[in-house]
Amino acid sequence: MTALTSAPEATDLAGLVARRVPGFSLDAPFYTSQEVYDADLAAVWARCWIFVATEAEIREPGDFVTVDIGPHSVIVVRDDDEQVGALRNVCRHRGSRVLTERSGSVGNIVCGYHRWTYATDGTLLHAGDQAPTFDRSCFGLRKVHVRTVSGLVFVCLADEPPADVEELAGTVAPYLDPHQPLRTKVAAQHDLVEHANWKLVMENNRECYHCEGGHPELTCTFFPTYGYDRDRIPARLMPAHERYLAAEAELEAACLERGMAFAEVEALEEERVSAFRVQREALDGAGESYTLDGTVASRRLLADFDTPRLGRASVHTQPNGWFHFLSDHVVTFAVLPLAPDRTLVRTTWLVHEDAVEGEDYDLERLTQVWDHTNEEDGEFCARAQQGVTDPAYVPGPYSPSERQVESFVAWYVARLRAELAR
Amino acid sequence: MTALTSAPEATDLAGLVARRVPGFSLDAPFYTSQEVYDADLAAVWARCWIFVATEAEIREPGDFVTVDIGPHSVIVVRDDDEQVGALRNVCRHRGSRVLTERSGSVGNIVCGYHRWTYATDGTLLHAGDQAPTFDRSCFGLRKVHVRTVSGLVFVCLADEPPADVEELAGTVAPYLDPHQPLRTKVAAQHDLVEHANWKLVMENNRECYHCEGGHPELTCTFFPTYGYDRDRIPARLMPAHERYLAAEAELEAACLERGMAFAEVEALEEERVSAFRVQREALDGAGESYTLDGTVASRRLLADFDTPRLGRASVHTQPNGWFHFLSDHVVTFAVLPLAPDRTLVRTTWLVHEDAVEGEDYDLERLTQVWDHTNEEDGEFCARAQQGVTDPAYVPGPYSPSERQVESFVAWYVARLRAELAR
Amino acid sequence: MTALTSAPEATDLAGLVARRVPGFSLDAPFYTSQEVYDADLAAVWARCWIFVATEAEIREPGDFVTVDIGPHSVIVVRDDDEQVGALRNVCRHRGSRVLTERSGSVGNIVCGYHRWTYATDGTLLHAGDQAPTFDRSCFGLRKVHVRTVSGLVFVCLADEPPADVEELAGTVAPYLDPHQPLRTKVAAQHDLVEHANWKLVMENNRECYHCEGGHPELTCTFFPTYGYDRDRIPARLMPAHERYLAAEAELEAACLERGMAFAEVEALEEERVSAFRVQREALDGAGESYTLDGTVASRRLLADFDTPRLGRASVHTQPNGWFHFLSDHVVTFAVLPLAPDRTLVRTTWLVHEDAVEGEDYDLERLTQVWDHTNEEDGEFCARAQQGVTDPAYVPGPYSPSERQVESFVAWYVARLRAELAR
Repeated sequence: MTALTSAPEATDLAGLVARRVPGFSLDAPFYTSQEVYDADLAAVWARCWIFVATEAEIREPGDFVTVDIGPHSVIVVRDDDEQVGALRNVCRHRGSRVLTERSGSVGNIVCGYHRWTYATDGTLLHAGDQAPTFDRSCFGLRKVHVRTVSGLVFVCLADEPPADVEELAGTVAPYLDPHQPLRTKVAAQHDLVEHANWKLVMENNRECYHCEGGHPELTCTFFPTYGYDRDRIPARLMPAHERYLAAEAELEAACLERGMAFAEVEALEEERVSAFRVQREALDGAGESYTLDGTVASRRLLADFDTPRLGRASVHTQPNGWFHFLSDHVVTFAVLPLAPDRTLVRTTWLVHEDAVEGEDYDLERLTQVWDHTNEEDGEFCARAQQGVTDPAYVPGPYSPSERQVESFVAWYVARLRAELAR
Repeated sequence: MTALTSAPEATDLAGLVARRVPGFSLDAPFYTSQEVYDADLAAVWARCWIFVATEAEIREPGDFVTVDIGPHSVIVVRDDDEQVGALRNVCRHRGSRVLTERSGSVGNIVCGYHRWTYATDGTLLHAGDQAPTFDRSCFGLRKVHVRTVSGLVFVCLADEPPADVEELAGTVAPYLDPHQPLRTKVAAQHDLVEHANWKLVMENNRECYHCEGGHPELTCTFFPTYGYDRDRIPARLMPAHERYLAAEAELEAACLERGMAFAEVEALEEERVSAFRVQREALDGAGESYTLDGTVASRRLLADFDTPRLGRASVHTQPNGWFHFLSDHVVTFAVLPLAPDRTLVRTTWLVHEDAVEGEDYDLERLTQVWDHTNEEDGEFCARAQQGVTDPAYVPGPYSPSERQVESFVAWYVARLRAELAR
Repeated sequence: MTALTSAPEATDLAGLVARRVPGFSLDAPFYTSQEVYDADLAAVWARCWIFVATEAEIREPGDFVTVDIGPHSVIVVRDDDEQVGALRNVCRHRGSRVLTERSGSVGNIVCGYHRWTYATDGTLLHAGDQAPTFDRSCFGLRKVHVRTVSGLVFVCLADEPPADVEELAGTVAPYLDPHQPLRTKVAAQHDLVEHANWKLVMENNRECYHCEGGHPELTCTFFPTYGYDRDRIPARLMPAHERYLAAEAELEAACLERGMAFAEVEALEEERVSAFRVQREALDGAGESYTLDGTVASRRLLADFDTPRLGRASVHTQPNGWFHFLSDHVVTFAVLPLAPDRTLVRTTWLVHEDAVEGEDYDLERLTQVWDHTNEEDGEFCARAQQGVTDPAYVPGPYSPSERQVESFVAWYVARLRAELAR
């Protein structure tokens, strides 16, 4: 009985990876062990491009946000040249956290402990009481790679970030740029801490098998047939499917007329580090936006749209983002790991930069569908975490409509395999 | 100085077991280390029959309770054939916790995540959107062994449960069945989280050396001479002892007259997995029940008792239960591990199925003696946990009246020894 | 990629110690790892003299305080012969914590669990229900070494405490004894839990590089030039420096006139276990005490002082204390480890034993400067802990005015080196 007589066994990550059965959920340690969590930080979070913010959050020089990717804190800041930069949020003196606010605006970046002062590009400008030999140029804030994609800010903690982000950026631009994301502002940003491993949060997002019944607010406009093979729609969902087909036909015509991209592109192959999926699809109800009746949440449409019926241009990015660009607003989701069993979901709603709260949009109405949906998903994920923590758990089979969960999991396991091979 | 230069040392469980000195409390790691806690889950909690509920909690088909044995969640349910069954509370799809409520009543067991639907015997009845090759019969909820003993529900997580539970069941029946436990209902159930290792909670229960002064409410009726050798009663307790002898003589006569068992049976040998102790003993005060003056808490007596003066038929079961069957009510105690230093004590009061709250019994009066006693014990156990966590702790000697603590500890160590030998 | 495939690596303490670069902050594991914390408990907290209380807290026989040094609880008690003693706070029966109150007064020390009764010197006086062979003399409370220094109580958990405490005691007496600390009483004691490793708390205390701007209340009287080389005072601090020089000249004259010690003694060499520093220095403002304007906080001066302008006799002791003796009050600080990332700072204000609250002193005015300063330091230390926990942290250089931080760190590393060599 080894467990009683020897040291706590190492989690055999290579064995776990090798034993993974395609089409089935992952073994329990992937969701519960500290060692796998640490491996995830190394193999995924410190290697991939991570979605962390929108450009709308840092519109002016000196505007910054801080974001935690596991134990890594990153400052995302618009510098004096209006470029978006990213810096490690750790003072080069004795290691103090430099900026503790979630967001704000600064001239220089000043550490609150001993007043070491850095420029917005990280250069150390001033450190009091130093010997003449002290070389300021050696003590700038460490830089982080940053890449903006149609107003979405991605960072990469690796020395050499994955180059395939370019394909992602090039592919999604025709879907997202028509919404003119650089002419938006933040209407709301809500953080939710889910009591589940980050992968359970992502898996939950990658299927709508749980939407029917599980998300009453979302399915007012989001077709619950999402993910189903067209020849496998359950009888009870056929009315919805017929509405979907009609709405899709109308949407395609509208897109063709306006030269807007809508076709599905699924670039989720496991060898692709910056894997993604994009598609523009129709909405149910009034077909305009994520509201209970489907009419717009903001009367001030994005860009110069001449119609509110443009469906949702939806993007998924591995490992941690999803995005919906609508005619009247944009909603973005960043998943950020906190601990093996705790995950932050940050939801941001953007509206036209000139939209006026109370006149053009009502905050409660703008946010209610996804606030409720997130809360429901948080409950689902917490139950899943409880169950996979139970020794009775054994991996079970994905249904056909959970195909994108399998894509996510296979992609994730490939990242671990790549890291193990380094 | 090994501790500074090498990996965290494995807890040497075999060494700890081998070094255990009979008559002395256990070494600190038994109460504090995660590794011993994990070993306890394997060697005790996943091997033995564990008391988890009473039949009174699940009187009708579809009634269920969920109970956590460490990380294992178990559904105890009365099925459509009115049999008591037990199932692992983990969905066979992606592992979600199936039932999250503490108790309730269901037709089928439906997982809240993706609506997989199981019969009350665990059979998978429905799983949406599956390929034709999907074999439902492979994905039923996993079963758990269950055994009822005079209305008490025990489960066993092992593949092969200990057979010696039959001797326990056969021996205690003549003490308990006269109270007709199947004709009771739950009047109250209170959970208390104690900040101590589960073994400290059990040890505290197995002696009354701490009762004098420590439990003012309990010792109104529970003779504080319990556990003392008859020739070692302290002078200050002699008046109580004389009351005890008189009450015992009367009780024995009453039992003989009614053909009810009362003699002590102590089957606590360490080689016996389903070890237990049973005895009917007299109560102090009015001698009827656990109240401040000793009169009944429920005027509606259990069974068809013609007298309230039947003392307490008390059963101890290893590793986690104790029970008192009185003329007017039954009180049961389940100890369930939560963490190395946290333990749940669940106390359940049963009264006659026809007793009416407010008329036959008052809830506050029914529960106050054991509520106070549990709270006092929780404080004692928390102090003990604090002390054994202090590096200054060294095992100390049990007094003669702590004999049953020694029995419990020796039994426990035997379970570890058996597991190490597997 | 070792971290993914093998057991969690042991913290290589010997390597960490060997790699330490003088003049730079410590590597991250020193501040974050459980293993280094455990090593600190062994090498520092269980070896050195630890400041835990003042004699003013236990003025009468039977008065006690309990103090936690990491997992070790110690009872400090004035015994029937009016001597200060220290005992392990763990019952010799089954290990219960004996005294759970923070302070109080007792005749004998009675364990609340089974009423084992000890004299104030630890002797076991009574244990109920024992066999005739039970030898009480084997079960007294374990003793802890104790040493009082000018009214300050130090304990040592080691079998053989460091002898060099005598030099500390002899050196500081001429600075502290004139304040007659045995004729003081406790006016206030405030506990603050800082979210940082204990060494960050100590490092923060050992420099005033952060005072300017960081401690507006303290720098009303504490010269922010503290720690600066006299030939390196920044221009902006020259006015303060000139006030300092004038105040020092006056203070020296006052001390010489009264035969009081004031010269700096720095005995911080790393080979000295009971390392310390003592100096009497002038205060800014009215120059009398730690208040916003520098006038006394208590009108009843300590001892028989004929002037309130006696500056501050300040003592630092490694690893965990600092003290300021003023004309009108004494303030002491004990740093006590709670966890790798949590530390208790206990601040105690003593006034003349005959001072009357509301007449001679106002509690709010007495405590406000250090309450605010502690709170500010707590925030600095929490930021530092956050930063060193970030993988981006690399040790940075101390400035010249952080010389005493380097002394502390070098002393600490020497303790680990000594322990590794045992």
